[in-house]
Amino acid sequence: MPLLSKPRESHPSDMSAVPPVHDHRLSHVLSARSVAVIGASSDPAKISGRPLAYMLARGFKGELFPVNPSRDEIQGLRAYPSIGAIGKPIDLAIVGTAAAQVESVVAEGIAAGVKAFVIFSSGFAELDEAGKQLQQRLADLARRSSVTILGPNCLGVANSATGLIASFTTALEEAPLRAGGFSLVSQSGALGAYWLDIVLRSGLGCGQWITTGNECDVDAAEAIDFLVDDPDTRVIGLYLEQVRDVPAFRRALQRAAVAGKPVIAIKSGRSQAGAAAAASHTGALAGNDSLYDAMMRQHGALRVDSLSEMIDVASIFLFDSVPHGTRLGVMSVSGGAGVLIADGAESLGMRLPAFKDATCQALRGALPAFVHPANPVDLTGNVVQDRSSIAKALAAVSADPDIDCIVLFVGLMHSIADAFVQALSDARKDLRTPVVVIWIGALDSTVTTLEAAGLPVFSDIPQALHAIAGARRAQDWQREASRLPLPDTGILPGGEAGVVLSEWDGKQILRGQTDVLLPRGSLVSAQGTPAVPIDMVFPMAAKLQSAKLMHKSDAGGVLLHIASAEQLIAAIEQLSQVGRTRGLDVQGVLVEEMVAFDHELLLGLRRDPHFGAVLTLARGGVQVELDPDAVSRLLPLDAIQVEMMLRSLRSARLLEGFRGHPAVDISAIAARIGRLCAWFTAQDGIQELEINPLALRGQQAWALDALVTLSAGE
Amino acid sequence: MPLLSKPRESHPSDMSAVPPVHDHRLSHVLSARSVAVIGASSDPAKISGRPLAYMLARGFKGELFPVNPSRDEIQGLRAYPSIGAIGKPIDLAIVGTAAAQVESVVAEGIAAGVKAFVIFSSGFAELDEAGKQLQQRLADLARRSSVTILGPNCLGVANSATGLIASFTTALEEAPLRAGGFSLVSQSGALGAYWLDIVLRSGLGCGQWITTGNECDVDAAEAIDFLVDDPDTRVIGLYLEQVRDVPAFRRALQRAAVAGKPVIAIKSGRSQAGAAAAASHTGALAGNDSLYDAMMRQHGALRVDSLSEMIDVASIFLFDSVPHGTRLGVMSVSGGAGVLIADGAESLGMRLPAFKDATCQALRGALPAFVHPANPVDLTGNVVQDRSSIAKALAAVSADPDIDCIVLFVGLMHSIADAFVQALSDARKDLRTPVVVIWIGALDSTVTTLEAAGLPVFSDIPQALHAIAGARRAQDWQREASRLPLPDTGILPGGEAGVVLSEWDGKQILRGQTDVLLPRGSLVSAQGTPAVPIDMVFPMAAKLQSAKLMHKSDAGGVLLHIASAEQLIAAIEQLSQVGRTRGLDVQGVLVEEMVAFDHELLLGLRRDPHFGAVLTLARGGVQVELDPDAVSRLLPLDAIQVEMMLRSLRSARLLEGFRGHPAVDISAIAARIGRLCAWFTAQDGIQELEINPLALRGQQAWALDALVTLSAGE
Repeated sequence: MPLLSKPRESHPSDMSAVPPVHDHRLSHVLSARSVAVIGASSDPAKISGRPLAYMLARGFKGELFPVNPSRDEIQGLRAYPSIGAIGKPIDLAIVGTAAAQVESVVAEGIAAGVKAFVIFSSGFAELDEAGKQLQQRLADLARRSSVTILGPNCLGVANSATGLIASFTTALEEAPLRAGGFSLVSQSGALGAYWLDIVLRSGLGCGQWITTGNECDVDAAEAIDFLVDDPDTRVIGLYLEQVRDVPAFRRALQRAAVAGKPVIAIKSGRSQAGAAAAASHTGALAGNDSLYDAMMRQHGALRVDSLSEMIDVASIFLFDSVPHGTRLGVMSVSGGAGVLIADGAESLGMRLPAFKDATCQALRGALPAFVHPANPVDLTGNVVQDRSSIAKALAAVSADPDIDCIVLFVGLMHSIADAFVQALSDARKDLRTPVVVIWIGALDSTVTTLEAAGLPVFSDIPQALHAIAGARRAQDWQREASRLPLPDTGILPGGEAGVVLSEWDGKQILRGQTDVLLPRGSLVSAQGTPAVPIDMVFPMAAKLQSAKLMHKSDAGGVLLHIASAEQLIAAIEQLSQVGRTRGLDVQGVLVEEMVAFDHELLLGLRRDPHFGAVLTLARGGVQVELDPDAVSRLLPLDAIQVEMMLRSLRSARLLEGFRGHPAVDISAIAARIGRLCAWFTAQDGIQELEINPLALRGQQAWALDALVTLSAGE
Repeated sequence: MPLLSKPRESHPSDMSAVPPVHDHRLSHVLSARSVAVIGASSDPAKISGRPLAYMLARGFKGELFPVNPSRDEIQGLRAYPSIGAIGKPIDLAIVGTAAAQVESVVAEGIAAGVKAFVIFSSGFAELDEAGKQLQQRLADLARRSSVTILGPNCLGVANSATGLIASFTTALEEAPLRAGGFSLVSQSGALGAYWLDIVLRSGLGCGQWITTGNECDVDAAEAIDFLVDDPDTRVIGLYLEQVRDVPAFRRALQRAAVAGKPVIAIKSGRSQAGAAAAASHTGALAGNDSLYDAMMRQHGALRVDSLSEMIDVASIFLFDSVPHGTRLGVMSVSGGAGVLIADGAESLGMRLPAFKDATCQALRGALPAFVHPANPVDLTGNVVQDRSSIAKALAAVSADPDIDCIVLFVGLMHSIADAFVQALSDARKDLRTPVVVIWIGALDSTVTTLEAAGLPVFSDIPQALHAIAGARRAQDWQREASRLPLPDTGILPGGEAGVVLSEWDGKQILRGQTDVLLPRGSLVSAQGTPAVPIDMVFPMAAKLQSAKLMHKSDAGGVLLHIASAEQLIAAIEQLSQVGRTRGLDVQGVLVEEMVAFDHELLLGLRRDPHFGAVLTLARGGVQVELDPDAVSRLLPLDAIQVEMMLRSLRSARLLEGFRGHPAVDISAIAARIGRLCAWFTAQDGIQELEINPLALRGQQAWALDALVTLSAGE
């Protein structure tokens, strides 16, 4: 399988600052040359016996040192009474003792010169407060002594290149540790083990396998970072339950994007992430889970829902079968299946262009006279009789400049499968496009042969098309991300909410910037005879101001289209009455000129305690709650990114001038919003700013309403 | 596998008129007791030799008569020189001769008393005009002689109960024809063969397998109809490329719904069905493919995208595992997987309720002390050691009245799989809820054992949850459909479009009904001094009337909010000018009172040439084109169905009174629309009626604009 081990070429840019792989903290674990197993058992079926048994069975290339004071020999190796007794520094110690002993075992290891530890033991932060403290002491030990600790409560690691298996997973009971370019970082040991089980039984093979457990020291971000520099790793799989250090995680994803190593991630907990109950819409639109979505999307990681989907997409990459575009040439032994592929492709944003004349002519030469050379082309059962025709037909379609990828559909043909696969495999060498095979009901042996020939194969149509579309997206997103600088930690503080300001007070703060305009306005007293501002132009709006009045409109606290001074005086009186009726602490009435505009958006900027500053843009009006059309991204964001956010809204066509609606200058608006983001980033005192509506016309944007929440303590 | 062959109890209602199965025209094919093979070959590998070889190998229970004038014996059976020479009437003749001879072979068979024919031969309507005529003559022959013809150009049939195999599919080369409750009707031979290949290699087994090919006589509707009465069939799979006879197809789906036999259908050609280019929105919203969607949905058939999905959903039914509700109790050997199941369930409209106290208590007794008895419950690796605990835990969760279905997640455990499956299988017998197993990376042998124990098993989380959700929907939809009468063919004529009327002329026709109100209005002359209607109330609207002016608003042909007689006169003059500038043949200006309303919908009624009369309802305004929120159903429709259509819109909450928007009386509006549908059905002269907007307030609905297209020839 030469294709499987061929490393992908990396972008040279931004990689100069990267330390070589042997200097990475995790290389003491994964490239360990000497391994001690603390408390090693003679029984290869026991948890404490398995790592040794696994490594012995698979010919680990380094030295192994069982440590067990009650034995001289374990599984054929000399055993040592203590780690110190080995008498030389050790790269990695595997620890599976009871939680209470872990700290002293690690301390003893450090004293003996051990550089890294994999700790299986449970009973730490996942159990109780005492365990949490125990875990903190391990973390402190790691930092103080500059050693690397993986775990505790993890299932360990495996490295197929060296045969290192610091794990007791039953997934390695029988399967060989087949080498490949697919590596995994998993916060769950169990999910990691299922992945390993499936990947090792498939034709894909495994590069590095890393489970991080409670992450007292090494976290998922650091593990990804290691894999970016690992020459054996071409595709990074990820199973996440939480990200502890968002800036580090973003940098790791960003480095993977620059290196062109796709990251395919499962993040669990979508259903648990209840929308934050907040005074603003932004809180509801940009809940915890959607910020994970935003983070992955903007740094080029593809979020998937299952291990199957992860492995399907990975196989497109591992078999070098990511198409350069969305144009499929479909060849099928059944006309019906060809149509089903066209149906599925269209629903995923791919298409089947008409073949060029030259392609049609070449197909006529390759296939029986009754075959109509259209896309999808029905090869008919004839390919069973004339196997040379498949090579000619593949060559014809692959040569078509309008085709980015061939999808070949096969079914049945069990008895002639080997010969057919041979014909395919021979033909593939000369093709300029990838070939993805869908073989419905294929026998296991057929799948194995196809994969050995470097052809990705799927068992049904939607599965294959989702994999192709997912790989395309992952590649596009990484390219898009790779043009951006690595995010800087310093500018992304989280925060906690403090006081909520009235619209008037909020708008005073907004006057600190100039990109979003504010309608001319004045705060007038709600008591006594109102003073009507004399230099303002009708029509006007009058809005009751009170920090206690969150939803002014719902409470009758907003009056619009005021056309004269008399109407204005009446309006102010009416609003004062609303304040008295509701017993509000009224600041006054905000009187503003009304602005003519063509479109309205909701704009939210907020400092998420976990993710830092976030921009949310949404279609405004009733839509915000009825059927939200919203997009969020983590700051920093430049104008291009903001423009892509705007254009990704379902309602983007409205802004572009749809059905007679006036268009706005989206680039200019995006540039304004981009500068507003930069301004917001610098305003430590503001926890959240929601402008709803943000009124748009041409190149201009006005904050018609503003809800500002100060940071706690401001 | 007792569960697989247990027939589902059928509703007795509406079934009294159904002929017994042996009287069905297709029973001459599928229940044939004597079969002649015309042109039978001695070579069991040849197409003309395979049917005999297959039936002999599988012990067909009837008599076989090879017909071949050049041989005395074929495959060990006495051969006859002609079908007449057999000397007795034959149930079924299998015909695979060249197309040109088929007609005479069939005629000879009819003369000899053959009751039915399966015709493999191609070269008919799928080839050219001559073939089409040849096929028509076969159809005429069938009708005149009251014989049944399946095909031509089909892959035949198989009946697992009798071992009848009138097919040459290679899917039967090796696999035994395992009996089961899953039957298929396929218009594509190839897709039918793939289905058979997969189903026979799975644990599901096959009931009847019917490919209908060119359908010169028997079509898919008739085949479904046969399966509804077939005692061996519990679930009907369907692969469709087109439906020839919509009323018959609707009746067949409807009978399946009444009988409680789920229909799971693939309909290909979604991407080919380009939206009709039409003067109305309705044409674009209710294109051919969405009418297939509508038809299936309203008669309870579940449309799926792939054979895998069809087989997954079918297995939930075949293993009697359709839950009564959407509440899942999730048990998992991995906490992470439990969370992923919760995520997936929520996205599909299912949920994981909290366990009752009694359930928690029972779980505490069944599981180790450190397990927290919440839903999803993490069984932990302990179940490997203590297999009795799984039975206790299953019993505890199944007894919870808030749980409709148990989803059990397992991974790895290959070495103890048999014992674990035995424990599961024993436990299952006493449970009140279905148990669906997800075993990630399960070995084939484990899947086989689980299925043999009557437990459906899936290899990953999304696949299982989609299957459960799909089966739930199919069952709900069939129950919903089964309350309705069988559709009557007579009232569903298709039609072709004729003249498009002006709004004024269209509204005159609408005055023939009273359920949708019309604003008071008058047609005034656009020439000379306009006569202002004196008995009408301001504000008014003025609309230029011309049958040539399709999009009045876009052309400046609509003026609203006219507040006085002077404004009205000016408006009429302005509209006259628009007519002159555009060189329109102007009928006049429609002057209407403006109506105050709270919501607007688009309502379309049209006679589709293929599907007959169709109602389309959509959210009005810019949304119709920007991001359509529409639903279509075939007539007839009652008020309850219309109400369900309204409530299925994404924007339904607006009608229900969302965020301060006034609610309308949805039931009253639905009743009005239902009566409008009945009125439309009777108006043969109207091809299409689009009311956009249909203005709503309270219990009232007004047609503010109306676009009426007459039927051709009217």
